[in-house]
Amino acid sequence: MLGLMMDTPLLTTDILRYAATAHGQTQIVSRNLDGSIHRYCYSAALERCLRLSAALKSLGLSKGDRVGSLAWNTHHHFELFYGVSGQGLVLHTINPRLFEETLVKIIDHAEDQWICIDAATLTLAQSLAPHLTSVKGWLFMDPDDGLPETSLANVISYEGLLKSQRADHEWPTFDERSASVLCYTSGTTGDPKGVVYSHRSIVLASLFMSMADTVGVFRPGHREAAMPIAPLFHANGWMMPFTAPMNGQKLVLPGRNFEPERLCELIRQENVTVAAAVPTVWFGIVNYLASAGLELPSLRAAMVAGTKAPRPLIEDLERRGISVGQVWGMTEAPGGVRGTPAPGVAELPPDQQFLHKMRQGRMGFGTELRIVDDDGTALPHDGLSVGHLQARGPIVAAGYYRLESSTASGWLSTGDVARLHSDGTIEIVDRSKDVIKSGGEWISSQAIEAAAVEHPAVLHAAVIAIAHPRWQERPLLVAVLKPGAVVTEQEMLDHLSPLIPKWWMPDKLVFVDSLPMTASGKVRKTELRKTFAGDADSFVVQSDPELGNQRRA
Amino acid sequence: MLGLMMDTPLLTTDILRYAATAHGQTQIVSRNLDGSIHRYCYSAALERCLRLSAALKSLGLSKGDRVGSLAWNTHHHFELFYGVSGQGLVLHTINPRLFEETLVKIIDHAEDQWICIDAATLTLAQSLAPHLTSVKGWLFMDPDDGLPETSLANVISYEGLLKSQRADHEWPTFDERSASVLCYTSGTTGDPKGVVYSHRSIVLASLFMSMADTVGVFRPGHREAAMPIAPLFHANGWMMPFTAPMNGQKLVLPGRNFEPERLCELIRQENVTVAAAVPTVWFGIVNYLASAGLELPSLRAAMVAGTKAPRPLIEDLERRGISVGQVWGMTEAPGGVRGTPAPGVAELPPDQQFLHKMRQGRMGFGTELRIVDDDGTALPHDGLSVGHLQARGPIVAAGYYRLESSTASGWLSTGDVARLHSDGTIEIVDRSKDVIKSGGEWISSQAIEAAAVEHPAVLHAAVIAIAHPRWQERPLLVAVLKPGAVVTEQEMLDHLSPLIPKWWMPDKLVFVDSLPMTASGKVRKTELRKTFAGDADSFVVQSDPELGNQRRA
Repeated sequence: MLGLMMDTPLLTTDILRYAATAHGQTQIVSRNLDGSIHRYCYSAALERCLRLSAALKSLGLSKGDRVGSLAWNTHHHFELFYGVSGQGLVLHTINPRLFEETLVKIIDHAEDQWICIDAATLTLAQSLAPHLTSVKGWLFMDPDDGLPETSLANVISYEGLLKSQRADHEWPTFDERSASVLCYTSGTTGDPKGVVYSHRSIVLASLFMSMADTVGVFRPGHREAAMPIAPLFHANGWMMPFTAPMNGQKLVLPGRNFEPERLCELIRQENVTVAAAVPTVWFGIVNYLASAGLELPSLRAAMVAGTKAPRPLIEDLERRGISVGQVWGMTEAPGGVRGTPAPGVAELPPDQQFLHKMRQGRMGFGTELRIVDDDGTALPHDGLSVGHLQARGPIVAAGYYRLESSTASGWLSTGDVARLHSDGTIEIVDRSKDVIKSGGEWISSQAIEAAAVEHPAVLHAAVIAIAHPRWQERPLLVAVLKPGAVVTEQEMLDHLSPLIPKWWMPDKLVFVDSLPMTASGKVRKTELRKTFAGDADSFVVQSDPELGNQRRA
Repeated sequence: MLGLMMDTPLLTTDILRYAATAHGQTQIVSRNLDGSIHRYCYSAALERCLRLSAALKSLGLSKGDRVGSLAWNTHHHFELFYGVSGQGLVLHTINPRLFEETLVKIIDHAEDQWICIDAATLTLAQSLAPHLTSVKGWLFMDPDDGLPETSLANVISYEGLLKSQRADHEWPTFDERSASVLCYTSGTTGDPKGVVYSHRSIVLASLFMSMADTVGVFRPGHREAAMPIAPLFHANGWMMPFTAPMNGQKLVLPGRNFEPERLCELIRQENVTVAAAVPTVWFGIVNYLASAGLELPSLRAAMVAGTKAPRPLIEDLERRGISVGQVWGMTEAPGGVRGTPAPGVAELPPDQQFLHKMRQGRMGFGTELRIVDDDGTALPHDGLSVGHLQARGPIVAAGYYRLESSTASGWLSTGDVARLHSDGTIEIVDRSKDVIKSGGEWISSQAIEAAAVEHPAVLHAAVIAIAHPRWQERPLLVAVLKPGAVVTEQEMLDHLSPLIPKWWMPDKLVFVDSLPMTASGKVRKTELRKTFAGDADSFVVQSDPELGNQRRA
């Protein structure tokens, strides 16, 4: 026996249609690539998105076809989320920071037919174009409707195309499981891994993220101004292009200007109340604020994800009256975790509250989390057991585009190692591939790294496993010192000693000039492991012979 | 091209499983029928609901079978929402306040196989039983596992049955569109009209109601304690049995004790922060508070729906620090409207803010609203146009159980007449069948009634249309005076004159001893219209001849 409710599909376009109806005059503010400000409202945005859909239809694109975007956080990019997928097409949000050979690989894999670019990605597009096989043309998004001089073939002006269309276009209705956005994970090895969000999953994720529970600072939507500093090509800018209109929030888009000074200027001018970014960006912001002697009085909440936020960053933000909500998430499972404090935390003394702030959020309705051991057996949520984190639910990826399914167990393996607490909070311990397995126990490389960077001389630190005849693996600490800083191996060990368990102490320390990094700014540990393969005594330490195993930068 | 996200159905049982995992120790507090307090937590509730499902299976019930409930707001009733529908059965929540012949009609129509009753509904069940054809047995819900002396055949103790089952039962997975709860509207004429909520519609409605936007007083769930004073058989107690666990809120259930003194006692003892009830109940509460000299310091928000809240009630509650959120809703379309102030309202002077508080909430994402004229043409959301309110979306009924579909247009006719404002707010003007059509314009019976009860002598007022040779219809005011109060027709008209447009002034006033009421406490206007059929001069006015058209109670 079925229910007798309307069979209305969950489509992302209904989010914008809602905002245009009930919050029609609420603003979308966006920084153009030239630094100037563009300003319009949801009802005007709806009209433009409908014109865009009509235009894409006129280009001969049909349901399921992929349209790529090589763009930053502008109102043009915002419009693609609705104008492309509203028409039943799939928006492939491409990360322009990837290496060119990776870009060619994923654009080919996605079979993008058109790619939307702007003045900032034009040069990149020109160097990719000769290697692409599926692309039929390029849409150039610029405030003007003119076209740049370019080697690209078949370039159309976005604004010109919109002007040629009528705004009374009607979006088709279709299965809510239809693909809406295609987003490749930033993994740099192996096959490209494309996550395909459905309309259903985006609407549900946006609903989950809109629950009062999520950030604890949400008020009636129109009192908020939300700014995704997270790029729109990273898991849909953490869903803000959807959650803002869904809640009638003002949306503030920083364009491609991610310099702390420009971000702070925009936050102050537009009275941004909630912003989302990775820890590195927040670090830049607090450092700028300190040097400029400024505050951000309107900003009430910092949503922090991507990697764990270090304690000094949280302390700094909270001292400025900006509440920090860490949320675990990944391209394959965005928006399932709440950033508000767990039950009882508000009643704890400040120091203990702080320990909770250091966790990566807490479970929310809609995304089930569990931890399992190496054999796949579920472990208790006791705050002690450590296991591989798995996720399940309607906003979790079941597989990757044109790849064999990887979730045969019904659960997504997140690649993270975590503790789960009985109050629902999540404590990420390490990446599964980075954890060091020593004598049957697990050592967290991230925990040692966090302890190492607390030393005033240390700029960056990476901990990897090195083979050990008795313990199987032991930790090696690879550190980059700050310019001019000096530290001995013994000083470093003395520093670590009170901060980590005795049996976690690195067997060896190495000081290097720099760490190998991925395009998205993470340490390339695979390369470190190659460099330092073998047991702890067999590799060459790049130390200054005059000072022993110690380095003067 | 479909998305590649997990195909996880939206099932209500996942709400309770979430609460048991992430808010396992959060309490459900319920007043037993004998007045004592029952207290347990979500993890214990989950275990009992699983046992209940196992028990129902053991009784031979299978997917789609209906199980009725004749019960009040107890933890037992809460368990039925999960234990019955978690097993794929359909919970038919029956309103014990209906007339017995109506009850027999709807139980037969629903073909309930088992009915869950308690000590308070036992007598009613006994008098219904001889007339029922589908019912195979009765589950008696009582803190003990004993059975009462009764004429009912095949009565089983609920507690006894649960004890006989194991808690490791696993809920089946099924299509999210499966029926979950069957709820008949309280209409008293014509065929029974059963609304069939699907699992999907309940989960979505609960998500919509959990958005920060909804009541404006939600904080991280565990800081709230929610009390549905609205009976659980009215549109699932306005979804609180679902929204509370979904957000990790403490749930406080008043049992069948709806007396203001008992309600206030429970609110104070359990630190209830949010409560939901119709205006009549809130009136009882503020009157009790005034007479007892008490306040409700924990209570931050009153959710008010069912009918429009009169101004004095809103003023009284807000003066006590209780924020009033009016939300329009109906059995066929619950949970689609937000109770928080519209954009810009917070910046208005208090008096104008108040006018907004008098509206019936504002549109939220997920339920589209529009107004149409008599021909079905959509009217603008300009705050001026008045039309028939229609609703559409995934939590709106597409039809009624075993009745012809009534939403051929794709929209549900709500039976309400409303204005929609450009800021998304909703102003209910009248019921479609009660609006008075005078000279091509519409007069709101509810607006005149509201103005009439502002007179200190008036206890109740009802306005109906009476035929008029020139204007087609004109308003007649039927009023009940307070004990001992006296008022003349002219005094009444003088009172109304500044409050309503001149052409709305009733052509006639009648004072009566009482108004005919429905089982759910609404004025039976059909009966009034029969009594006062004909033109304004043809009916007998029940006035005191000594005083002219005036009444001394």
